[in-house]
Amino acid sequence: MNEQSRVESTTDVLIIGAGPSGLMAAYWMARCGINARIIDKRETKIFVGHADGLRPRTLELFDSMGFQHRVLHEASESTEGPGHEGKLVRQALLDMTQADHSPYHNTRLSQGRIERFILDSIHECSDLRVERGIITESLEYDEKLAADANEYPITVKLRTVGPEDLHTPDSNKQSSQNQLTCEDLFPDDWEDLTQRENQKEKVETIRAKYLIGCDGAHSWTRRQLDISTEGSSTDHIWGVIDVIAISNFPDIRRVSVVTGTTGTILVIPRERGITRFYVPVQICEAGTSDRFDRSFITLKLIKSRVQEIIAPFTFDFEICDWWTVYQIGQRIATEITKGNRIFLAGDAVHTHSPKMGLGMNMSLQDGFNLGWKVALAAAGTVKPETLETYDLERHPLAKMLLEFDRHWVNLFLDIEPGEMDTKAESMAAMSAKFENFAHGWNVYYPASKIVSKSEDDGATKNAQHMVPGERIHPFKLRNQADGCPQWTTRLLKSDGRFRILVLAGDVRGPTQRQRIETFSEALGSESASGAPILDRYVGIPGRYESPIDVFTFHCAPWREVEFFDFPEILRPLNMSTGYAYDKIWSDDACIFDRYCDGTAYEKWGVDRALGKLVVIRPDQYIGWIGNMGDLEGMTQYFDGVLVRKLTVNGDPSVI
Amino acid sequence: MNEQSRVESTTDVLIIGAGPSGLMAAYWMARCGINARIIDKRETKIFVGHADGLRPRTLELFDSMGFQHRVLHEASESTEGPGHEGKLVRQALLDMTQADHSPYHNTRLSQGRIERFILDSIHECSDLRVERGIITESLEYDEKLAADANEYPITVKLRTVGPEDLHTPDSNKQSSQNQLTCEDLFPDDWEDLTQRENQKEKVETIRAKYLIGCDGAHSWTRRQLDISTEGSSTDHIWGVIDVIAISNFPDIRRVSVVTGTTGTILVIPRERGITRFYVPVQICEAGTSDRFDRSFITLKLIKSRVQEIIAPFTFDFEICDWWTVYQIGQRIATEITKGNRIFLAGDAVHTHSPKMGLGMNMSLQDGFNLGWKVALAAAGTVKPETLETYDLERHPLAKMLLEFDRHWVNLFLDIEPGEMDTKAESMAAMSAKFENFAHGWNVYYPASKIVSKSEDDGATKNAQHMVPGERIHPFKLRNQADGCPQWTTRLLKSDGRFRILVLAGDVRGPTQRQRIETFSEALGSESASGAPILDRYVGIPGRYESPIDVFTFHCAPWREVEFFDFPEILRPLNMSTGYAYDKIWSDDACIFDRYCDGTAYEKWGVDRALGKLVVIRPDQYIGWIGNMGDLEGMTQYFDGVLVRKLTVNGDPSVI
Repeated sequence: MNEQSRVESTTDVLIIGAGPSGLMAAYWMARCGINARIIDKRETKIFVGHADGLRPRTLELFDSMGFQHRVLHEASESTEGPGHEGKLVRQALLDMTQADHSPYHNTRLSQGRIERFILDSIHECSDLRVERGIITESLEYDEKLAADANEYPITVKLRTVGPEDLHTPDSNKQSSQNQLTCEDLFPDDWEDLTQRENQKEKVETIRAKYLIGCDGAHSWTRRQLDISTEGSSTDHIWGVIDVIAISNFPDIRRVSVVTGTTGTILVIPRERGITRFYVPVQICEAGTSDRFDRSFITLKLIKSRVQEIIAPFTFDFEICDWWTVYQIGQRIATEITKGNRIFLAGDAVHTHSPKMGLGMNMSLQDGFNLGWKVALAAAGTVKPETLETYDLERHPLAKMLLEFDRHWVNLFLDIEPGEMDTKAESMAAMSAKFENFAHGWNVYYPASKIVSKSEDDGATKNAQHMVPGERIHPFKLRNQADGCPQWTTRLLKSDGRFRILVLAGDVRGPTQRQRIETFSEALGSESASGAPILDRYVGIPGRYESPIDVFTFHCAPWREVEFFDFPEILRPLNMSTGYAYDKIWSDDACIFDRYCDGTAYEKWGVDRALGKLVVIRPDQYIGWIGNMGDLEGMTQYFDGVLVRKLTVNGDPSVI
Repeated sequence: MNEQSRVESTTDVLIIGAGPSGLMAAYWMARCGINARIIDKRETKIFVGHADGLRPRTLELFDSMGFQHRVLHEASESTEGPGHEGKLVRQALLDMTQADHSPYHNTRLSQGRIERFILDSIHECSDLRVERGIITESLEYDEKLAADANEYPITVKLRTVGPEDLHTPDSNKQSSQNQLTCEDLFPDDWEDLTQRENQKEKVETIRAKYLIGCDGAHSWTRRQLDISTEGSSTDHIWGVIDVIAISNFPDIRRVSVVTGTTGTILVIPRERGITRFYVPVQICEAGTSDRFDRSFITLKLIKSRVQEIIAPFTFDFEICDWWTVYQIGQRIATEITKGNRIFLAGDAVHTHSPKMGLGMNMSLQDGFNLGWKVALAAAGTVKPETLETYDLERHPLAKMLLEFDRHWVNLFLDIEPGEMDTKAESMAAMSAKFENFAHGWNVYYPASKIVSKSEDDGATKNAQHMVPGERIHPFKLRNQADGCPQWTTRLLKSDGRFRILVLAGDVRGPTQRQRIETFSEALGSESASGAPILDRYVGIPGRYESPIDVFTFHCAPWREVEFFDFPEILRPLNMSTGYAYDKIWSDDACIFDRYCDGTAYEKWGVDRALGKLVVIRPDQYIGWIGNMGDLEGMTQYFDGVLVRKLTVNGDPSVI
């Protein structure tokens, strides 16, 4: 490296690592037009193997990001499972997903495809690209600069290197990633495989306002910050294989737990006819487990273990798409943020067994939770204190995940023949207990500046199934203008804006119509506390003038009211895009769509005569609930989170 | 052009024109691995405007081609409509689509997007690319060579020209296509807009086995063949505008027919907030209509006509995405094929008013019908006589389309104030009469070598809603291996193969199980008439060894039978792809999917105790129906269409 170039630069947000959590964070930077960089040491994206499980909540997020249809087109879905096998007699088929709790079910698709979809989403709304083949060399953090939002307290030294310098210490080095050809891939991945740029070696010193470390279990960022991890590894070594299974085992295309006389394996059907097997391969001697020799474990060994456990059924394969070996353990970072300027997410925070299909989901959701906060803080839209809620909301969930995993993993270990019925029962019980958490339906985000949980005024009484800190339960509503049904997960786009949901109730009656008129007038008026609420706060530069968007969900029959019946502030006119026909929706059944059944109000627990006001955060979690008249309470919520504009007459209000 | 290069070449199939019908035909060439070329005189694909209506059947075809999810993600759907407006009082909202007749409804999306999706499908399975900026100079057809399937009787001289030589006499020359920037387009169209190659001028003489002329209303191919068109133009000139409408008309996002005092307009909501208006702008003086001066009609004029008719409601716009002017007329080519070597499809065959949204659908379906036949004839898989059925099946439909259009268009013309109620009723009646045809649910394909309509043996009695010559009514079935529901339109992929559907009935009882065993054994056995049926015919070279694929749709409850209960020939093993888990399906309800309700057998009219045998052509139209024992009848059907392999011992059987 004789003539390497040296560059100095600045960026608002630097993301290290382009796996699920890093890409999710990058999505928000792209969507909100933030000056950001994302780097990764790997030369290419992932194509096969790795994580695969997608929980319903993750698919709901994908819907709000605009690519859920691509996932469902390719993925393998669950309907019933897991089947419990005792002595290889099918014990039960369990209904694993509540049919009505989400539009989506447990689904499986390779992490590589998910990365593809997020990358495409980023591409569609910005010039942000993953810079690959870049290693990090040093990190400095100047705490003194952190108080000033405009300063760059973080300095990271990067080195762009050639392929020969890249040593990926991944556990999947034995995998077939390097021998992949276009035939193994989806056409939209071809370019990534074939057009690896021959980049010039260079060293760059980059100063950033925010740093997001998504650099995996062995996080370089975490080590630089001297953040330790807690937890332990167990003595149990497992293999994972993605194969085209040749087997007469009848449930090979259903998520199954199979217990033979010498162990328990987990069978996970995947896209493109692939089946994944989690296989116990070895128990290390006590004390030696941390240094076990991976090279000892071969694909052949894993295959023979499956054959042993699944007997008397047969098992073989010719095609192995990917395989790896891992050691069961649960570790969690003791801290996940430094001064609200540096953050860790994904595997850098939590590592655990992959058996519940939660790792990728948690990582995606970490990145999703963190991303909008950092993006809007960098944009000057939300107050920097908002960033404190990342730790508050996600760290406890990581702990919960590990607790869950510890219990779950134990159910797979050392099953004695006599215990099988008990274990099967325990699995079912455990599954039920953690279901809402595992699916992502409940996240239990605590009260904070962005989650208003007031118990005193009875405001939540008539929206008993809308809980601040939880997601809004998705339903299909009918667009008032064209009658077409749409899932709320798709309506409430992840574009960086907070949303006021005017649950206007049954607007056919004059009383309720008057209530909506009064509310709308107040919404558009100056008040003692300042400019009209939609004009009061700093927008997202270059994207939206107001960080607040308004949707109306009424519950009158679609045919009995008209779009123009609603006050103009609820359906504003823009000369380039026309009337906001996408803003007024009806909770009415549609004979053309069996999923649009007009039950949202009932299931949300909202009074049809009175309606309700709800504020949704940019990630669709409920931030605040109040009665239709409570504009003051709503204003207080926004004042707590959003940055006020300077007032027009030069008299600066609170920033 | 001094140093232009001259090239001579051959191809099996040459397609002229890369619009909807040409691309559909090209899809089949790509899917079946045929040596083919497709050329177009335009420099780029279409991006905005043009046709937009998609009928349910077209979406069913897209599902079988693998991209229906992309269409539905972007398109605007109909639920109710059209509303009839008399004196601008809403007269009725009609339910335009039968909810249960198809998974899909009337949908609207720009032709440019449809072309994108077909192009991507082609790209995914072959190297076939549209060659653009190519004009055709001469066509010769040597009838003497046509008898030999291996000969190239067609000679076409092509010239590749630079952009300055391209004069597109399109009616949309006033449109904004040339000023488009990436901001106006979907990201996946960017490359097509920006990367126009600067190609060298060259002249090529290409000899082809088959020629498909999809070169539009002014078809060059048709003129070379001296094929005349019948029909007439009317005196009525209409404008079409795609705009972001600024209007207080309440039904602007619903398909509407609006009759004012001075005329009738058609309002069609589109994707991305666009609304399309069909507007009568002028009645030419008798006799002068063929030479009316388009330049007289301006966007401003069309706008003022809409304002006039829609009054007292307001109408304006700032954004016009695309607009054009057309003259109403119905013309049909007197012939659509020449010696079963040259074929016309799409607008080259039929032109008519665009108001029913049928033009693009008919063109797509023409190309779809013709494409598989030419592809399989070129592959040596089907007998050349199969090509006769293109004329037999599609020409009458084109006539029907024109008849329909003539009636429909009249309803829009010269409406006197007193007539409005009558006209509205007539429209509803007309709509009902032609509904099954317009939606594409009934195509009325007559008996032929590929449609076996036997009235005598009562064979169709217990499948009363499965009619040879019609499509198979789509339902969601559950995969036997994993329980996941899927639409039959997606299962029955358009990959070039004929399909035997073993409607196995309720296989829990020993009688029916025995029947399936017996049938399966016969299916796999040699008979007096030759090799086992799946081994008997020439496959699709490089794609499939057999041109026949087998699916089993039983109606026992999913949980009460097992995948391995079925004979192996129905679920064959392939060491690279594993067991054929995608071949056995159950007509059973699934609690996770409201569309999977276990009613297929009932609605197909198939006896659950006896089952049925059905043969589906590569385009999913029913070719033959018989009882489970009637392997002989089925063999006769295949012998009539498919080319037999030479037998192994060197004794050639019929080819």
